[in-house]
Amino acid sequence: MSIIQTTCTPSSLYSGDRFSVAYRIYGSENDARAKAEDICIEQTVEFPAECVGEGTIRDQVFGRIESFERRDGESFAAVISYAVEVAAGELTQLLNVIFGNSSIKPGIRVEHLELAPALLSGFKGPRFGREGLRVLLGIPHRPLLSTAVKPLGHSCGELADLAYRFALGGMDIIKDDHGLTDQCCSPFEERVELCAEAVRRANRETGGQAVYVANITAPHGAVMRRARFAKAAGAGGIMVAPGLVGFDVMRELAEDDAVGLPVLTHPSLQGSFVTGQGGMSHSVIFGQLARLAGADATIFPNFGGRFSFSREECRAVVRGTEVPMGRLRTIFPAPGGGMSLDRVPEMLETYGRDLIFLIGGGLFKQGADLVENCRYFRKMVEAMD
Amino acid sequence: MSIIQTTCTPSSLYSGDRFSVAYRIYGSENDARAKAEDICIEQTVEFPAECVGEGTIRDQVFGRIESFERRDGESFAAVISYAVEVAAGELTQLLNVIFGNSSIKPGIRVEHLELAPALLSGFKGPRFGREGLRVLLGIPHRPLLSTAVKPLGHSCGELADLAYRFALGGMDIIKDDHGLTDQCCSPFEERVELCAEAVRRANRETGGQAVYVANITAPHGAVMRRARFAKAAGAGGIMVAPGLVGFDVMRELAEDDAVGLPVLTHPSLQGSFVTGQGGMSHSVIFGQLARLAGADATIFPNFGGRFSFSREECRAVVRGTEVPMGRLRTIFPAPGGGMSLDRVPEMLETYGRDLIFLIGGGLFKQGADLVENCRYFRKMVEAMD
Repeated sequence: MSIIQTTCTPSSLYSGDRFSVAYRIYGSENDARAKAEDICIEQTVEFPAECVGEGTIRDQVFGRIESFERRDGESFAAVISYAVEVAAGELTQLLNVIFGNSSIKPGIRVEHLELAPALLSGFKGPRFGREGLRVLLGIPHRPLLSTAVKPLGHSCGELADLAYRFALGGMDIIKDDHGLTDQCCSPFEERVELCAEAVRRANRETGGQAVYVANITAPHGAVMRRARFAKAAGAGGIMVAPGLVGFDVMRELAEDDAVGLPVLTHPSLQGSFVTGQGGMSHSVIFGQLARLAGADATIFPNFGGRFSFSREECRAVVRGTEVPMGRLRTIFPAPGGGMSLDRVPEMLETYGRDLIFLIGGGLFKQGADLVENCRYFRKMVEAMD
Repeated sequence: MSIIQTTCTPSSLYSGDRFSVAYRIYGSENDARAKAEDICIEQTVEFPAECVGEGTIRDQVFGRIESFERRDGESFAAVISYAVEVAAGELTQLLNVIFGNSSIKPGIRVEHLELAPALLSGFKGPRFGREGLRVLLGIPHRPLLSTAVKPLGHSCGELADLAYRFALGGMDIIKDDHGLTDQCCSPFEERVELCAEAVRRANRETGGQAVYVANITAPHGAVMRRARFAKAAGAGGIMVAPGLVGFDVMRELAEDDAVGLPVLTHPSLQGSFVTGQGGMSHSVIFGQLARLAGADATIFPNFGGRFSFSREECRAVVRGTEVPMGRLRTIFPAPGGGMSLDRVPEMLETYGRDLIFLIGGGLFKQGADLVENCRYFRKMVEAMD
């Protein structure tokens, strides 16, 4: 057997700082422990452990089981730590270490991240966060109200007219539907210019501070250009789906001073991480990772809507938006997806006031006058605050 | 109820060309049919269907159930078509239409894509494909042999020495381990220069045409720069993990003439798409989408290794690499993950000769002399060809 000798890489390259990932592992105790030991190798050296001699690689680079305990009748909780140097200061490589190859093995779920200060210091996180967004919108206390211009197939003028009426009715955040990108019926630049102008016009009439949020989810070469165009056109925020463009694109958008706008993250194509036994917890993917990658608000399906999240899973998202993560700001949960006005009391009870109500089709169903429907919604929320 | 009137967007914007997605839907017949109807809306307008009047949106933009039939005792097969204009010629938006929001609903799996010529014409696909890669490597008939320099923690010099020995022993493709990015122990540029030079040196001695493939998975702002650096340093290919950087980054890398290298796709973080009941089929994510995004070879876990794929699932990947997709080239399956030399006959039987054997740790376990282990492997494969 060919043994990899003690490496000439000095141990002084490693600070000793480690970050931790809490995994839920399904199976018998023996199986789960073997899986935990396997994760230590799979997520780092991906090499037969018995072929690695004593020395720096074994001591520093291997993942390390920090704790292992029974969680319930069918699963165990294992906390595994990694040297911060393994992540190389890259969000892409951090994701790879957290779950890259282990995502392909069944019965392993990423439950929680404890990211060391030395690692977190390399990430700026949300530019605004809850506090900053409240200041920007001039709403110190009550929940924020959000809706989407749609459906796809409308012309830019029709979408802008909707944006105008939403803003006139008192909605705070008027975003593109996530399926609006650069279709022939509503090209990106024309749509963004018209919608931003429509919201400004409504603001002049109401004295409000509503913002239009442009969906800038786009091919690799276009995404930053669209974000800067949106900024120049007067959009008050951008929305991006990291499941489509990659988490690191969102990080770069959030950190880009030439954009400098609030970022909403959309869960498109991320569902497969949470619908099975494996994957990631709702708290990690929609909370902690969204924050790490700079989102100021995270959109996810509300419980009891047309998606399948439970109330407990939605609460888990909220925990991810506010759990201590160094100096990273807390962010807004933005539950949506088939919600209607009669859900407002129940949602306030579940989420508290630090939330963004995201209501789409439900606003159309309330009555024939869209502006009045918005006003009704706003008054209802203000009355409860 | 506020009805969205017939839109002023003219139907002439739509060519009538539609692409199709075959979904597997779990549940009773009534439930599955309701889910299929829901997909038509969720993946396009995401708006209450009853609020959309007659006209272009309903006729053109809504998804359309082309067929619906029982598949087995627990699931149904639904083929749903979408107007090509909805995808806007963007891979990101195409992914969104295929599975964006529906990924968040349980019991729905993307099984197969039938992409219309009008849509495929916007994608260049693999630059080399199976044929091109065989020409490049000068291997007209036999399977290709591949291995990885690792483990993480080695210095660049140590990794380059491994690369040299692999090439000397007759391996065709010597790639970075996917966990090697830009760590302090083996910084990207130094590693790539040394490994590319090491393989060139071995080629001079053997008269061979082995290539070094650099892992250029990196943050958004660095990925194209690293790919071009690899090209300039003499790497013969690049590897990228679309689960970490996004599929569209791979497409741009493959299409970039200044890179112009074969692309290997790595499955890191894509496992959650295939481990549950929902998600995507192995054929779609590791085959069809990899090809559409320009990969020339697709790395995935071999059956019977340390991952859990079945032989049938691996065969499904192969189908995705070669199923007709307009003029897109067929690509190499590259099964790996805990494979050893004694698996060669069984793999040849399963995959045929158009495959890349990817063996990592197994090469070290065979005997004390790494070069001899490689030669043994190569002779074994040549003898069977």
